[in-house]
Amino acid sequence: MTAFEPRNPGYRAAAIAMFEGQPAMRTLGVVIVRLAPGEVELAMLHSPAFTQQNGFIHAGIITAGLDNACGVAAFTLMPCEADILTVEFKTSLLAPARGERFIFKAEVVKPGRTLTFCEARAFAEHEGKTTLIAAMTGTLMAMLPREAANTAPA
Amino acid sequence: MTAFEPRNPGYRAAAIAMFEGQPAMRTLGVVIVRLAPGEVELAMLHSPAFTQQNGFIHAGIITAGLDNACGVAAFTLMPCEADILTVEFKTSLLAPARGERFIFKAEVVKPGRTLTFCEARAFAEHEGKTTLIAAMTGTLMAMLPREAANTAPA
Amino acid sequence: MTAFEPRNPGYRAAAIAMFEGQPAMRTLGVVIVRLAPGEVELAMLHSPAFTQQNGFIHAGIITAGLDNACGVAAFTLMPCEADILTVEFKTSLLAPARGERFIFKAEVVKPGRTLTFCEARAFAEHEGKTTLIAAMTGTLMAMLPREAANTAPA
Amino acid sequence: MTAFEPRNPGYRAAAIAMFEGQPAMRTLGVVIVRLAPGEVELAMLHSPAFTQQNGFIHAGIITAGLDNACGVAAFTLMPCEADILTVEFKTSLLAPARGERFIFKAEVVKPGRTLTFCEARAFAEHEGKTTLIAAMTGTLMAMLPREAANTAPA
Repeated sequence: MTAFEPRNPGYRAAAIAMFEGQPAMRTLGVVIVRLAPGEVELAMLHSPAFTQQNGFIHAGIITAGLDNACGVAAFTLMPCEADILTVEFKTSLLAPARGERFIFKAEVVKPGRTLTFCEARAFAEHEGKTTLIAAMTGTLMAMLPREAANTAPA
Repeated sequence: MTAFEPRNPGYRAAAIAMFEGQPAMRTLGVVIVRLAPGEVELAMLHSPAFTQQNGFIHAGIITAGLDNACGVAAFTLMPCEADILTVEFKTSLLAPARGERFIFKAEVVKPGRTLTFCEARAFAEHEGKTTLIAAMTGTLMAMLPREAANTAPA
Repeated sequence: MTAFEPRNPGYRAAAIAMFEGQPAMRTLGVVIVRLAPGEVELAMLHSPAFTQQNGFIHAGIITAGLDNACGVAAFTLMPCEADILTVEFKTSLLAPARGERFIFKAEVVKPGRTLTFCEARAFAEHEGKTTLIAAMTGTLMAMLPREAANTAPA
Repeated sequence: MTAFEPRNPGYRAAAIAMFEGQPAMRTLGVVIVRLAPGEVELAMLHSPAFTQQNGFIHAGIITAGLDNACGVAAFTLMPCEADILTVEFKTSLLAPARGERFIFKAEVVKPGRTLTFCEARAFAEHEGKTTLIAAMTGTLMAMLPREAANTAPA
């Protein structure tokens, strides 16, 4: 992977603040494990409250972790005044989300002034083994202040 | 839309049981509003616990509702002994998830013996106005007992 | 569907000129059948040169028709000086592309200043029967002159 | 990447025969450059016949190359009597398809008895420089003879 040069020297604090400003991440118990320009790793413990009918974590919850990983990764490369929106993502479910802990790794593949393209993968840690359980590709959008003022989100 | 003929005469009870077997839906407060062969409508009240940094519902949570709507819609057309898996979905975020209540409508576009293709839309009800906020297309897979026994989930 | 108000009064001529400026459409034999603000229908005759190993039209060629339908539909709602780019699309292949003639219908679901979200469906006409064979959702981007001047395409 | 064990010892000849059985690949001038279990690289020279309004290769044609790369990669891991179908793919267009030659690299991320998940990337070679121009994720399906006999393609 290319090393990316952040445009915002305070990218680290900005990304953490954006992440911590999301009650949904606290509710799901998602935390930042690693953060670098254009790359992020999040983790989440298993919680019975977020399972589906077979006891695995719900695909939407796995998607929330993957989407957030993409968002934080993209945000580290945006200018300091930008807000960020998800335009779209696709999630492929590759194996059941069975495990004690889940990891969400995202990286920026192509940053842009307006749009950033990211890829992310989710892994389950189960009885000492790590399994790839899902893959996401997503498009994120930077909203700059004057644009944000008078625009619908796309 | 075509009217679909359910293969499972008890499709209604089966779909409700599958839905109610998901702790994630209870935790998010998602309920079934309408159910017909190949069609479903779910609803969810706003909850601050599932918001992102701007106070809107997190895209992953909206996706959980959309995915579940697709899953239930597809499940109504599956044979009675089938279990269901999501293969993949794509969510497009069209407007902020701002509102007091959210609706998830899904319908089967193409049922199949193994794979079912669904479309779903999410709407936000905010101050008396209903807005389309997200669209999903997804592929769901029927797992029949003997297959489920000896197979990885895809 | 909502009726859309084109921002470019000459949208019809502009969309046709953009479409006819594409050698790929001529090579594939795709033509415009119907054009309205935010909506388009294209058609293509079967050609053995574009088939896959079972004699059906290749999924990439069906996708070219669908993508172009989305592009023209989105373009009808863009300002007159805009150029258009496809950001991403997903195609679901629902049935074999078997037939004498193929139809690609697209409509704008959510127009925006920068991004436009479209849906499209492909149909095959075979021995007097019309079958839905594929569905696309796509994101298109308007490039305005000053932006186009100094930007990479996303 | 994991090394994959092909189930069909004649996977190489089978994959080449499947590829060469596609008139669309000949028409587009796509050729196999490299082939290994679960991995393939295709190449295509620029052709003015397949360009869009700015002289770049049409996104649908790039998608045809990417889809075929995924199909061949998936096919190398299928049993010898299987036929292959594309279920769905998403293409993200990252940069204009400007160049003299285009490369399509695909690899299997998760093989399965019924479904195989692949990722692919397209690169443009232009004036001695290679640029990532597009990324695909796709789901492919193995059709076994008795299944193929009595089933619609999904």
